[in-house]
Amino acid sequence: MSDILDLRRRTFFEGKRRAVVAAGMTGAAPAAFAEEAKALPDYVAWKDAAAMIVHSDKTLETRRGAIGTGSITPADRLYIRNNVNVPDASIVKDRDAWSLEVGGVRQPRAITVGELKTLGVATVASVLQCSGNGRAFSDHKPSGTQWTVGAAGCVLWTGVPLKTVVEAMGGAVDGVKFVTGTGGEEIPAGLDPKDLIVERSVPVEILDTIVLAWARNGEPLPLAHGGPLRMVVPGFAGVNNVKYVKKIALTEVESDAKIQATRYRLYPVGGKATPQDPSVWAMEVKSWITSPLETAKPGRLQNTGVALGGVNALAGVEVSTDGGKTWLKAELLGPDLGRHAWRPFALGVDLAAGKHTLVSRATDNESKVQPENFPPNQSGYSNNGWRVHGVTVDIA
Amino acid sequence: MSDILDLRRRTFFEGKRRAVVAAGMTGAAPAAFAEEAKALPDYVAWKDAAAMIVHSDKTLETRRGAIGTGSITPADRLYIRNNVNVPDASIVKDRDAWSLEVGGVRQPRAITVGELKTLGVATVASVLQCSGNGRAFSDHKPSGTQWTVGAAGCVLWTGVPLKTVVEAMGGAVDGVKFVTGTGGEEIPAGLDPKDLIVERSVPVEILDTIVLAWARNGEPLPLAHGGPLRMVVPGFAGVNNVKYVKKIALTEVESDAKIQATRYRLYPVGGKATPQDPSVWAMEVKSWITSPLETAKPGRLQNTGVALGGVNALAGVEVSTDGGKTWLKAELLGPDLGRHAWRPFALGVDLAAGKHTLVSRATDNESKVQPENFPPNQSGYSNNGWRVHGVTVDIA
Repeated sequence: MSDILDLRRRTFFEGKRRAVVAAGMTGAAPAAFAEEAKALPDYVAWKDAAAMIVHSDKTLETRRGAIGTGSITPADRLYIRNNVNVPDASIVKDRDAWSLEVGGVRQPRAITVGELKTLGVATVASVLQCSGNGRAFSDHKPSGTQWTVGAAGCVLWTGVPLKTVVEAMGGAVDGVKFVTGTGGEEIPAGLDPKDLIVERSVPVEILDTIVLAWARNGEPLPLAHGGPLRMVVPGFAGVNNVKYVKKIALTEVESDAKIQATRYRLYPVGGKATPQDPSVWAMEVKSWITSPLETAKPGRLQNTGVALGGVNALAGVEVSTDGGKTWLKAELLGPDLGRHAWRPFALGVDLAAGKHTLVSRATDNESKVQPENFPPNQSGYSNNGWRVHGVTVDIA
Repeated sequence: MSDILDLRRRTFFEGKRRAVVAAGMTGAAPAAFAEEAKALPDYVAWKDAAAMIVHSDKTLETRRGAIGTGSITPADRLYIRNNVNVPDASIVKDRDAWSLEVGGVRQPRAITVGELKTLGVATVASVLQCSGNGRAFSDHKPSGTQWTVGAAGCVLWTGVPLKTVVEAMGGAVDGVKFVTGTGGEEIPAGLDPKDLIVERSVPVEILDTIVLAWARNGEPLPLAHGGPLRMVVPGFAGVNNVKYVKKIALTEVESDAKIQATRYRLYPVGGKATPQDPSVWAMEVKSWITSPLETAKPGRLQNTGVALGGVNALAGVEVSTDGGKTWLKAELLGPDLGRHAWRPFALGVDLAAGKHTLVSRATDNESKVQPENFPPNQSGYSNNGWRVHGVTVDIA
C-alpha cells in the first residue's frame, strides 16, 4: 500500500495527472488521492463530487476519507457500478406502475410495485459492495475498474420480503435450487442478450433474506441505484443485487447469461473462467481504515474505519499502528444495524512523530478472521487481505 | 382531525389558497395537503422541495407522506426550525477550526472541533422534534408555526460524548446542576442579546447522553442543521439541541436568556409564562400514521407510521382503523437504532370501501401510553394526543 501511495504521490506531483481538486473538497479527501477529476455523469449529477472518484460514467467510487465513520452511506456518497447503460428515467416516473414478473411459484404472475407495497414491508441494513472492491491492491494488475476501498456502502433498504411474495403466489414449485433475478436494462439491438443481460442466480437457501426494495435510507430508490425496484440480497456481493428488477424466478438451474456463467467467477490468475468456478456470492469478513490517511499531528488521535462480517455477523475488529506486529481491540460505534450491516469503529491512540502503518483486521461471528493476504484470482475479486488495505501515515 | 382535513380540503377547492403543487411531488404528498407552495429558502435550496412544506424561511416541515417508513430521515427531508438567522456560511469553511468554549470544569478552556475529534467518537440515533410539533391540532389555535407531524426526524449523530470532554478538562466543578449550551448565532446590533440568544440549560443528570456532533447520517453536519458543531441532547425536544454551539458550561443555575426563562414553557391557555413552569425538555411517547393518508383501494393494505418513546425507549405501537374503538399490535420495522430513535411500524389490514379513521398509539418501556388527548397549553407544545394525530381515509 505504501508503494501505491508513493506512486500516486509521485505521479501527482510530476503532474502527469491533471489534479483538478473538486470544489469544496475537504481535508478528508487529500490532494494526493486526487485522481484526474472527471465530472459526475449527468444521471448522478446529484452526487457529492468531492466525495467521489469518477472512474468512468458507469463506475464511481466513494473516497476513503468520505466513508469516515458513517453507519450508513448517504445517497450522494454511495458508489455506482453499472454493467450496462442505465434505463431511461421514464421508468421511475410512476414507480408504483413498474411490473415484476414472478415465476417458479404455483401461481406465477406479474405484480406491480403498487401491489407489492400492499403485501408487506420490511427494512434491512446491508452492505452493498462491488465484487471488485480492493482490486487495485492486486499484485498481478487485473483489468477492470481499479477500485480501492470505496466500491462499498451500507444501506437501509425498505421493501417487501421475497418470501412474502412467494407465499402470496402459492409457494415455490418443486425442485427449485436458485433465485434468479433479471434486470430491466435495455439490450441494444443486434447484440446477443446473453452477453449483456444482468441476470443473476443465488442459492434458494437464502430466499428468506432477500428483499424487493423500493426505498433506500428513507427515500425512494433512485434510478441510478436500481429504482423503482431492486432485488437486495443481504450479505451477497453487489452484482447479485439486481437493479430495476423486472423478473424473479425460482429456478432449477443457474442462469446461462454470461454475467452468471463465466463472469464474476473466482479462478486462478492466467486461467479461463468456467461455470464450475466459484461464483461471487457471499461476502467475507473485511475492514479498512478511513482516518487518518496521510498525515496527522503527534499525540492523541482516533483511528477510525468500517468493518463488516459479510454474509456473517461481525464480531469485532482490531487495529494495529505498527503494520500488524501488535493489535488492539477497537470500539464499535453506534447502533448495531444487524447481521449484514457494516459497523464503524474507532481506536484512540497516541502516536509519536514518524511514519506509522495503520491496518485493521475484522473477525466474524464464526471466528473467521480477515486474512493477511487474500489468494489472488484473475479478476481481483473479493480481496479482503488486511495488509494491502492498510495506510501509511506521516505523523509530523 | 377529519374536521381539519375537511376544512383544508374545502379551503383548497375554494381556491382561497394558491395550491401550487411542487414539481415532482408524488402521491405521498396529496394535493389536498398542499399548502401555498413557498419556494425553498436559498440556504436550504438542496432540500427535496416535494417532501417539504415551507412555512417560512426559518420553518420548514417534512410532509407526512414523505416520512413514510424511514428509519432515519435523509438530510434533504429533515425539518428546519431556526429561532434567529442562520450564521454566515463562512463558519463551515474550515469546520475543524470552529472553537468551543467549555466552562464549569476544573480546567476550562477553548477547544477546536479538530481537537474534539482526537478525544473520542460516538454515534447515537435520536429523534429531533420541535417542541411545537402537533401545534396545528390544538383547539385553541395557538400562534406560532402550524406544525402538523413533520417537525420531527430521526438522525444518526456522530461526534464526541460531552462526558469525554468534561473528563479531559478535569471533571465538573462542584455544585453544578445544568448543562448550558450557547448557540453561535449573530445577534443584530441594538437588540438585547437576552431576548434573542439561543442558550438552553438541561439537567446535568443527563450529561452522559449528550454528544457534540459534527456529522449527521454519515456526512458533515450542514450549516442549516447546526454545523460545524451541535449539542445533541437525545430524548430532549429540538430547542435543547443547540446549533453552531460556541459555548458549553456546567452551571449552577439555568440560563436567564428569554428562550430558557420564559419561552418554551408549558403553561395554561391564556396564562403568562414564568421560569417556574415546566421547560420543554424530555419528549414523551408518540406516534403517527404516514400511509395511507387520503385514499386507498379496497382490500389489503399496509398502515405505516413512526413511533418514538421520547426520553424513554419505545416498547410497542398499536393501530386502530376504526378511530380508536379496537386496536391491533403493529410490527416494528428495521433495526432498533436505540433508546432515543424512532421506529417505523406497519400493520397489514383488509379494508372495505368507505371512510376509515386510522390512528396509532405508542407505549414506552415504562408502560406510559400515548394519551388520547394531551392537555392544552398556551403555546401548543408537546402535543402527543393520538386522536388528533389520526387521519380519515376514503377507501374507494
